[in-house]
Amino acid sequence: MSVSVVAFSGGVGGAKLASGLSRVLEPGKLLVAANTGDDFSHMGLHISPDIDSIFYAVTDLNNTETGWGRTGETWNFMAALKGFGGEDWFNLGDSDLAMHVLRTHWLQQGQSLSEVTQNFCQALNVPFNLAPMSNDPVTTMIDTDKGTLPMQDYFVREHCEPVAKKFSYKDANEASANSDILSALSGDDLQTIVLCPSNPYLSIDPILAVPGIVEALKATDVPVIAVSPIVGGLALKGPLGKIMGELGLEPSSLSIAKHYGDLLDVLVIDEGDAHEAEAIEALGSQVCIAPTIMKTIDDQRALANVVLAITKK
Amino acid sequence: MSVSVVAFSGGVGGAKLASGLSRVLEPGKLLVAANTGDDFSHMGLHISPDIDSIFYAVTDLNNTETGWGRTGETWNFMAALKGFGGEDWFNLGDSDLAMHVLRTHWLQQGQSLSEVTQNFCQALNVPFNLAPMSNDPVTTMIDTDKGTLPMQDYFVREHCEPVAKKFSYKDANEASANSDILSALSGDDLQTIVLCPSNPYLSIDPILAVPGIVEALKATDVPVIAVSPIVGGLALKGPLGKIMGELGLEPSSLSIAKHYGDLLDVLVIDEGDAHEAEAIEALGSQVCIAPTIMKTIDDQRALANVVLAITKK
Repeated sequence: MSVSVVAFSGGVGGAKLASGLSRVLEPGKLLVAANTGDDFSHMGLHISPDIDSIFYAVTDLNNTETGWGRTGETWNFMAALKGFGGEDWFNLGDSDLAMHVLRTHWLQQGQSLSEVTQNFCQALNVPFNLAPMSNDPVTTMIDTDKGTLPMQDYFVREHCEPVAKKFSYKDANEASANSDILSALSGDDLQTIVLCPSNPYLSIDPILAVPGIVEALKATDVPVIAVSPIVGGLALKGPLGKIMGELGLEPSSLSIAKHYGDLLDVLVIDEGDAHEAEAIEALGSQVCIAPTIMKTIDDQRALANVVLAITKK
Repeated sequence: MSVSVVAFSGGVGGAKLASGLSRVLEPGKLLVAANTGDDFSHMGLHISPDIDSIFYAVTDLNNTETGWGRTGETWNFMAALKGFGGEDWFNLGDSDLAMHVLRTHWLQQGQSLSEVTQNFCQALNVPFNLAPMSNDPVTTMIDTDKGTLPMQDYFVREHCEPVAKKFSYKDANEASANSDILSALSGDDLQTIVLCPSNPYLSIDPILAVPGIVEALKATDVPVIAVSPIVGGLALKGPLGKIMGELGLEPSSLSIAKHYGDLLDVLVIDEGDAHEAEAIEALGSQVCIAPTIMKTIDDQRALANVVLAITKK
């Protein structure tokens, strides 16, 4: 199978476009490079929130009501856990647990995170390669007014309330990039690299922090296309708008373009933000204006097709 | 707290009497020594089936329909697990999982199985000491016509269908008996030792196989009272009748008396087996005749009171 599209994705927001791409591309043509900077060990279980979100999104298992977790989820494990005085700040659904228990078990048996992820994909016939950015542990750390917090403490336990000052990616320098990702990025069949509309600081930058990834992006001739996660001055999901404000940045697609800098060839921005196009182009990136809000699977497919139609000028 | 009653128990059958004892004795007076020969690691989770059964029985969490597991249990974890091609021969309920995940987590953090078990008891206000027979791993092994099987393979995976020939307790010789059990057995306040109506081969003998336990039973002056798990020539629960047949033994309370031999001071047999009393007494044990079938909590209490009223002649 020869990969023509590599998509970098975090959880919910990015997963929607990854899902769209998976639905319009032929089997084997897509590789989704997933952020694992959110991964953490919880009660001995290895949790990979972004991989799970992508997996659930592409298999239609995602819970569209909560925006995370599995559809039709039940919570009897959590209720029993609370009864035993267990940690209850991170919700684990009964069905969702199967993934965490199996992943942990397989990792303990010596499989890599890539192999484990492939097992899940094969079991549910996911027709593309879902590749963790690295098999080595990398943890997104957030310097805040409450001290330096690992991602899940910041995101789930503290509900993103602390003021974010700086982001870093612990152990990224020592991590090896997933060889499937590096191969795809240098492959002859590569046509497009997509930075999904995920949070740049929390979801895309951790992937870029792994040695070799940025170099591969710079070395390739194919367009690097980001879809802006900001629409109308607001993040569609999650704490991105709040974070940009705390960093002294205007929450806008222009700020996203500045953030990715010369890594970026094309920025896809929402129709409502067309007025930003000129300023973004002045930075040296092409702009593609399209509806970027994905409420339905059809929206996902439509945006995926927009992205795939882009060629570098 | 000074223990006056030590009860040796396996899962379901024994747990009912342990439950009865817990309901009639003052807090702190009871110590239940639980079989851990069934314990095993399943998908990286440490499962202690008999401890769980006892725990659920004394807290009224037990599922009276299935006879095992928790009441009101749901099975969404298992359904998801099957979807991923995970092992599905051992059923893990969604609520039940909380105990397995927490136990495994606490053990990995360095707590002993005793400490872990005490955590659970404290969380749900269990008013007595539920003590694993040992903190060291001991595994009940069954020599069968299909080879030598560890307990859960024999019991759950093979549904007890292989013909049992011999029982052994792997690593029992190297295991240290739980110090709480040894202390209670040599304590000044001890009044009664109860072998609950559990399967002798699969539930009581593993406890007796741990060095120091039999010696403690022989050294004490208090009555060792077994409640026969056989009523009317049939085991009330589980494979005991089948196993006794395969070992060339008649399934009867007399055979139970012979099995425990001179360890036994008193055997409690069911009213329907009164005709066996003379033969049992001829072996040197006292006999107490009482209703031994426990269908309700009141039955459990009544049998517990019968046992506690017994004194050595």
